[in-house]
Amino acid sequence: MKPIYITRRETFNAAHKLYKADWSEQKNEEIFGKCANKNWHGHNFTLWVTVKGTPHADTGFVMNLKTLSKLVKDLVIEALDHKNLNLDVPILNDIMASTENVAIVIWNILEEPVKEAGGELAKIKLEETENNYVEYYGGKQPF
Amino acid sequence: MKPIYITRRETFNAAHKLYKADWSEQKNEEIFGKCANKNWHGHNFTLWVTVKGTPHADTGFVMNLKTLSKLVKDLVIEALDHKNLNLDVPILNDIMASTENVAIVIWNILEEPVKEAGGELAKIKLEETENNYVEYYGGKQPF
Amino acid sequence: MKPIYITRRETFNAAHKLYKADWSEQKNEEIFGKCANKNWHGHNFTLWVTVKGTPHADTGFVMNLKTLSKLVKDLVIEALDHKNLNLDVPILNDIMASTENVAIVIWNILEEPVKEAGGELAKIKLEETENNYVEYYGGKQPF
Amino acid sequence: MKPIYITRRETFNAAHKLYKADWSEQKNEEIFGKCANKNWHGHNFTLWVTVKGTPHADTGFVMNLKTLSKLVKDLVIEALDHKNLNLDVPILNDIMASTENVAIVIWNILEEPVKEAGGELAKIKLEETENNYVEYYGGKQPF
Amino acid sequence: MKPIYITRRETFNAAHKLYKADWSEQKNEEIFGKCANKNWHGHNFTLWVTVKGTPHADTGFVMNLKTLSKLVKDLVIEALDHKNLNLDVPILNDIMASTENVAIVIWNILEEPVKEAGGELAKIKLEETENNYVEYYGGKQPF
Amino acid sequence: MKPIYITRRETFNAAHKLYKADWSEQKNEEIFGKCANKNWHGHNFTLWVTVKGTPHADTGFVMNLKTLSKLVKDLVIEALDHKNLNLDVPILNDIMASTENVAIVIWNILEEPVKEAGGELAKIKLEETENNYVEYYGGKQPF
Repeated sequence: MKPIYITRRETFNAAHKLYKADWSEQKNEEIFGKCANKNWHGHNFTLWVTVKGTPHADTGFVMNLKTLSKLVKDLVIEALDHKNLNLDVPILNDIMASTENVAIVIWNILEEPVKEAGGELAKIKLEETENNYVEYYGGKQPF
Repeated sequence: MKPIYITRRETFNAAHKLYKADWSEQKNEEIFGKCANKNWHGHNFTLWVTVKGTPHADTGFVMNLKTLSKLVKDLVIEALDHKNLNLDVPILNDIMASTENVAIVIWNILEEPVKEAGGELAKIKLEETENNYVEYYGGKQPF
Repeated sequence: MKPIYITRRETFNAAHKLYKADWSEQKNEEIFGKCANKNWHGHNFTLWVTVKGTPHADTGFVMNLKTLSKLVKDLVIEALDHKNLNLDVPILNDIMASTENVAIVIWNILEEPVKEAGGELAKIKLEETENNYVEYYGGKQPF
Repeated sequence: MKPIYITRRETFNAAHKLYKADWSEQKNEEIFGKCANKNWHGHNFTLWVTVKGTPHADTGFVMNLKTLSKLVKDLVIEALDHKNLNLDVPILNDIMASTENVAIVIWNILEEPVKEAGGELAKIKLEETENNYVEYYGGKQPF
Repeated sequence: MKPIYITRRETFNAAHKLYKADWSEQKNEEIFGKCANKNWHGHNFTLWVTVKGTPHADTGFVMNLKTLSKLVKDLVIEALDHKNLNLDVPILNDIMASTENVAIVIWNILEEPVKEAGGELAKIKLEETENNYVEYYGGKQPF
Repeated sequence: MKPIYITRRETFNAAHKLYKADWSEQKNEEIFGKCANKNWHGHNFTLWVTVKGTPHADTGFVMNLKTLSKLVKDLVIEALDHKNLNLDVPILNDIMASTENVAIVIWNILEEPVKEAGGELAKIKLEETENNYVEYYGGKQPF
């Protein structure tokens, strides 16, 4: 059977800052620039979740998008939307809330539930602004 | 020689429904939700066709985009644009008109003609709404 | 008090055709082209609803976007999404399902409920494809 | 002379919350929903600044876009980008940081400097998410 | 009858420069910056043409979009696409090829033909980059 | 360690033509169509530069986006923005200024400097118009 990839887009809005507590304020500013503002800033994050599989004979679906969308909303959007990524998200407590790390955390949240729902998580793409995004394949290196 | 990938975007608008004749109306609604509406609904589909190759020394082209665009318009857009995917497209008659299946059908339509034109079809991306799309690599699994 | 305009975006997907029953098939094709396909075609419609008012001192809102979004979803999206505009929407039964007419119908549906919710409907923008949209100001001619 | 309108787009990212100190937490949640999260959330704001005028015979410009862009960056983006709209922006201290109020404040900041630079500020459009934006014409009601 | 506005989008790609022959090279650079590069630069221009009218009872159309699109393609796109705006477009020969002036020229080209086709030209919007565009209402000042 | 991919978007505007000096004007037109216009045309190019790596423990960054953005601006945008790709860019002097070749040149410019800055260049995506783009992985064939 030949695999195909389906992707669902969701969005969330959140505050964060990039700040390392054991660095001086000056070093934080030097490394993180405006992103270190102690009073936070925020973004409209856009998330694309890609699942790999083969279309079922009955439905033509790799996975029902309603199922996938519900998983992403219940497990990710509920946890991150209109939140402060540094303060309100326990799983991010001890790590930098960089786009890279948030994407990896989202992969880790979704990998098992997607498998239990009959799919295979293949990629997380997370866009922070129109000028930057990250892509994570669970550690695979397609290129 | 180092390969590079070129992509051409085209669009088409079509009606379809997701409905399995040997299921009850109730089961169709349970599985397909609003997509099972017996009177059809529709979408602006966006299609990206990717071809792999190395730039010709004379032209700097992997493949002339006019040639690629003409192939896609003649063989795909002509067949699908302003059509009912379930009723008007013979090649889709016996299969669910899911985005997955439509993308695979488009690959099957284009693979040989692209080869005859000197290119190698590498990817079909088909977007149904701003919130979902599928990607098909002819069965390859890049990730 | 100086008025300001707020806009809420919603989307719906629908099938329709442009076909005049008392015209010959040939004339329908001549006027409506591919849009006259008897088996329907469809679109992802994007709708922007604009309300005019002055920000409330307490909330800073012209109108709570949750209220506006609920009105649009309950009264418009529920009626049009995943529907056949010609067959499934009683209010469109006797008129051409052109983008112009659908926009006017949406205005007529929303004008009173928006007023009852404390706002003033100012504009309906309805996009049918990336290449065409209509704007309706309830008959006003700003330009 | 016939006037024409030019628009410059800029972006900024900021945190904010919608919260009225003299309301109970419950009432804040009822009115502002997730936007009342005490730990803030944030957005990528997109700002369009429109200036009216007639093209100069020498330059063909209503106003040099470099001048306009510098004004917007120096006076608005510098003040709002990577900031907390409630805490870091003195001019917003005593008013709700709703999109409506932020747009009006931006108008008030830019009106005079644009005039001094030879233009006439005509419109502020401020988008908070892909689903909502506000437009302010300095109190004029074009429709 | 209540008027409504329809808009058709078209695109063209062109080279141009902003350079005043009777100014020194230094003054050209001071005023026009990189846009004065003597070897030209270029843009993907996006054009929106808006026509005002009331929907015809038979068609539901203000104006058949096929007619409008053909007018724009024949009279504007044909003249500007893949051209050098300074060298290849006689009507622009003696004026600065600023976005403002190109938009006004497009209005002047289309106003009469649209009227002859039964519509009323209402607005030209011309986008030069994602960060700047102009809007022209034939000299009207809606705001 | 599991690699992740970060991408930075930048834009530039340039003129070019596709024209082979040792071909007749007729053959140039046959192969390159309107792109052969001797007086040039131009585009708004959009460039996405993707770097592969693992997030640093301190910063959560694969590579500081400020560093990456500065490299791209200094080495690529400075060389190509508001330029004539055929006349003003020495590295393109002897090769067709096709999107494919420009993307490969950008890879070659950035590969070493990105490595020196601690990253690994993984992909160049270059969009010429909304309807076509190329992707180059340094010769790798992910699919």
